[in-house]
Amino acid sequence: MINAQRLSRSIADLAAVGALPGGGVCRLALSDADGLGRDWLIAQMRDMGLDIAIDGIGNIFGTRAGSKTGRAAGPAVMIGSHIDTVATGGAYDGALGVLAGLEVMRALDDAGIATARPITVAAFTNEEGARFAPDMMGSLVFVGGMALAEAQETIGIDGVRLGDALARFAGTGAGPAQIAAYLELHIEQGPILEDAGLDIGVVEGVQGISWTEFTLMGRSAHAGTTPFRLRTDAGLVASKIAVAADRIARDIGGDQLATVGMMRFAPDLVNVVPEKATMTVDLRNPDEATLVQAEMRLFREAAEIADAAGIVLMRRSLARFAPVAFDPALIEAVADTAQRLDLPARRMFSGAGHDAQMIARIAPAAMIFVPSRAGISHNIHEHTAPHHLANGTRVLFEMVHALATRSA
Amino acid sequence: MINAQRLSRSIADLAAVGALPGGGVCRLALSDADGLGRDWLIAQMRDMGLDIAIDGIGNIFGTRAGSKTGRAAGPAVMIGSHIDTVATGGAYDGALGVLAGLEVMRALDDAGIATARPITVAAFTNEEGARFAPDMMGSLVFVGGMALAEAQETIGIDGVRLGDALARFAGTGAGPAQIAAYLELHIEQGPILEDAGLDIGVVEGVQGISWTEFTLMGRSAHAGTTPFRLRTDAGLVASKIAVAADRIARDIGGDQLATVGMMRFAPDLVNVVPEKATMTVDLRNPDEATLVQAEMRLFREAAEIADAAGIVLMRRSLARFAPVAFDPALIEAVADTAQRLDLPARRMFSGAGHDAQMIARIAPAAMIFVPSRAGISHNIHEHTAPHHLANGTRVLFEMVHALATRSA
Repeated sequence: MINAQRLSRSIADLAAVGALPGGGVCRLALSDADGLGRDWLIAQMRDMGLDIAIDGIGNIFGTRAGSKTGRAAGPAVMIGSHIDTVATGGAYDGALGVLAGLEVMRALDDAGIATARPITVAAFTNEEGARFAPDMMGSLVFVGGMALAEAQETIGIDGVRLGDALARFAGTGAGPAQIAAYLELHIEQGPILEDAGLDIGVVEGVQGISWTEFTLMGRSAHAGTTPFRLRTDAGLVASKIAVAADRIARDIGGDQLATVGMMRFAPDLVNVVPEKATMTVDLRNPDEATLVQAEMRLFREAAEIADAAGIVLMRRSLARFAPVAFDPALIEAVADTAQRLDLPARRMFSGAGHDAQMIARIAPAAMIFVPSRAGISHNIHEHTAPHHLANGTRVLFEMVHALATRSA
Repeated sequence: MINAQRLSRSIADLAAVGALPGGGVCRLALSDADGLGRDWLIAQMRDMGLDIAIDGIGNIFGTRAGSKTGRAAGPAVMIGSHIDTVATGGAYDGALGVLAGLEVMRALDDAGIATARPITVAAFTNEEGARFAPDMMGSLVFVGGMALAEAQETIGIDGVRLGDALARFAGTGAGPAQIAAYLELHIEQGPILEDAGLDIGVVEGVQGISWTEFTLMGRSAHAGTTPFRLRTDAGLVASKIAVAADRIARDIGGDQLATVGMMRFAPDLVNVVPEKATMTVDLRNPDEATLVQAEMRLFREAAEIADAAGIVLMRRSLARFAPVAFDPALIEAVADTAQRLDLPARRMFSGAGHDAQMIARIAPAAMIFVPSRAGISHNIHEHTAPHHLANGTRVLFEMVHALATRSA
């Protein structure tokens, strides 16, 4: 049903908007480039005859009417994602979910299929959070998790108030009042599917995230004249905590991850015992209880390591999100569909955040992943092979077709 | 004999030259402030009636004649150190050695003592190396370890060629042709004497120094989507090497030290597995064979840790100096003198480099340390109590008196 070439062409067309000279794309949320991308998308939706609505935060909804109308049509089947990118992003993160949604509708049109339920393709504003925090803002506002007025007061990394950047893009419309099911096709942004030689990731939910910053305060000292006994070495303690975080996560096993991505010493000189070290630990687990266990072990061990060295430890939470579980019936249906289409698949959790986790608050939601070459994303070298794009879209088509055919 | 007030006053007077508004001193080598300090010193020497010579690298020598003249006077007893400072230095590092030398001469004058041998106070150019590398440059050139022409081509951190900065300070004179003994009184720049409640450090030599930079190359990856199995985490490997360096040094024990003073991750983001880490390891030991052993163990373990993690390790030596042993008879004499003066003392190695280690190449040399408050040096809070300054100068006086009284 799916026209793989048409899909690839539409991804290439959108990637040309905000294209960077050296490859990759920059369409930071609500920027001029994002505005051109939004215009392009709205034009596509208009050409397809969709009913277009733009809400107060600028989320774009394009709806293909159901064959039943009014109350009988029942809630919409929604396909969503985003078209904003990070500053040096790729062509697939977000764009795939939106453009695959359009491709599903075009394939239904080609086949002359009318569905009982309406189908809505949604492009949510500012999913990346690369210009305005927090990320997943459009879908968060859409589900009522953040007031529009609060979002408008956000100041971007360029000093611009979101409300001012939003003014020319915001509308007075609204998305569907009720959502029967939400589906998001997305690139994995990790290496698991490619490594396992699989086509489809059946996403069971989004991992819980715990970001902690540790600041360690010791006393700077001359590396040549200060015996170990008289040192309080903040850098050594930071290194030990980094090693401990890794050990704790591997010890817990399963899907538990720990990453020390940031580490800074002061004064950061060859021959001076560091007086201060700042480091972050990123913990992730799909299971909240286990994530809490990992946090507790890390916090306790870090405190013990610091105490033993006479170092003052300060701990600050930079972010904390509980895991999100997607709808069991939808997950099952994605797995079944992949199997029926003979596409090798595995169940997995998303390590990154997605609009689907916001929509999951108000409607059954699930995600479909396709492989990312070398796991690379948020990078101009982001790539997913055309046949993977098409296979993911095939699964999406089957799911949407089945869900929209059921009448309310 | 020693006039403690006069000594303290002369230290305060020199500290006023290049004084920083918030405390501390900045007399970077061959800067305008250093020039004013040099002028002040030369004026002091002239007032004392010393025979002043300035050599090609700008080393200043002030000589008090011996009672025997010509060949019968024999080699000079030299007291030396430096008056340049780091950018945010204190009043004592270097200045003490030079000004205590002048105080020794003044005390001899007060007592009407003529010594058989001449006594020379030397202020060596650019000991700190804070503007022009390497450090200890003036004494290095003096002993023939570096050609003057080579030193002149050094470019400073401010882009100035040393030869140009030196032009107005260089002379055509020379230091004493022969040195009977070289003595340098210096603040410890470490916490050992204060911690042990001692007055005098009998310096046996200067530790060997080994500075190594490790660069670790892995692959950046998303902290949420990349399982441990598929990571090559350069930051984790750097942390493990830092912990190993500490363990190896403590394991070797004795005077072995290891310091990881510098650590940098790239891209240094909370949610990205570091692709690259750069770190330094500073190893010190007074014994060359043990230092080599520490290096070998560190290099082997670092390579093993990197290999096991699939990380490419690059190793670069940033500095390597063999330990310097001072003259056994002079060391013994310093210890005896401290004991005779009832000043609690201990033998120790210098963790930092000093002009004495250069002079040790051509003459018997030794050093006397006095306590540094909290071990702090190269810092505006550098402090040594007046009675410690005086006690160190008393030891210096006794040593110089005895050495200069012997005729050739």
